Amino acid sequence: MNAFVLHPQLAADTAMVCELPLCRVLLMNDARYPWLVLVPRRVDLVEFTQLDDHHCRELTAEARQCALALRDLYRPDKLNLGALGNVVPQFHLHVIARYRNDARWPQPVWGFPPAEPYAAAHLQARIDELQRALRQD
Amino acid sequence: MNAFVLHPQLAADTAMVCELPLCRVLLMNDARYPWLVLVPRRVDLVEFTQLDDHHCRELTAEARQCALALRDLYRPDKLNLGALGNVVPQFHLHVIARYRNDARWPQPVWGFPPAEPYAAAHLQARIDELQRALRQD
Repeated sequence: MNAFVLHPQLAADTAMVCELPLCRVLLMNDARYPWLVLVPRRVDLVEFTQLDDHHCRELTAEARQCALALRDLYRPDKLNLGALGNVVPQFHLHVIARYRNDARWPQPVWGFPPAEPYAAAHLQARIDELQRALRQD
Repeated sequence: MNAFVLHPQLAADTAMVCELPLCRVLLMNDARYPWLVLVPRRVDLVEFTQLDDHHCRELTAEARQCALALRDLYRPDKLNLGALGNVVPQFHLHVIARYRNDARWPQPVWGFPPAEPYAAAHLQARIDELQRALRQD
């Protein structure tokens, strides 16, 4: 049986936050937006329609938990959700806090590299506060 | 009590497909991609986190139903899901069939007007086949 392995592009672009029951939660290393990526730990998952009803509900619940954490921590003007996978086929769900004065408002954030990586201390502080918020829920 | 009213921008950009238990299902009038938009018939809904657990599950189930209809009818290379709302605040979820040779691949479809409206007969044929597919599920 194959084990779940995070796609190398997602591994390169993100930092680990925590594991929820279904998903690995990652922080996109882009200081322009508070941006989480949820990756269900299922081998060969490309489309959410491949998940059975139970896991589909679990994905929704975990997306909700992440969205509430972003909302409560960072008070965005809008949350953006997206599951595209046109470049990285491993299924992953973006949950992004957006602001009317952010770098790309009102456009989507995808497809506008380069990211602006966090300073190391800022990255760790953000991971710490997200871990606390996701544990409390 | 206020009644649900579709945002005028969504009304202008789409054609009616059907009503599911929670959502109105619309077809984006853009022949570049088979593109559905689901709008929960809830007054003042902006973020999916405002939905209670029951309705959140229902939204997921209806998104899955629409995604399967697009998959079975149009055999896309990839499904794209997105809920942005940076321009139109009324909550709406995009479910889009994408192809490696489509107009914007691998970029997201949002933010690249102008749309290419369907010819009238093609629009009606597409609505008819989507209605049949969504009734069967």
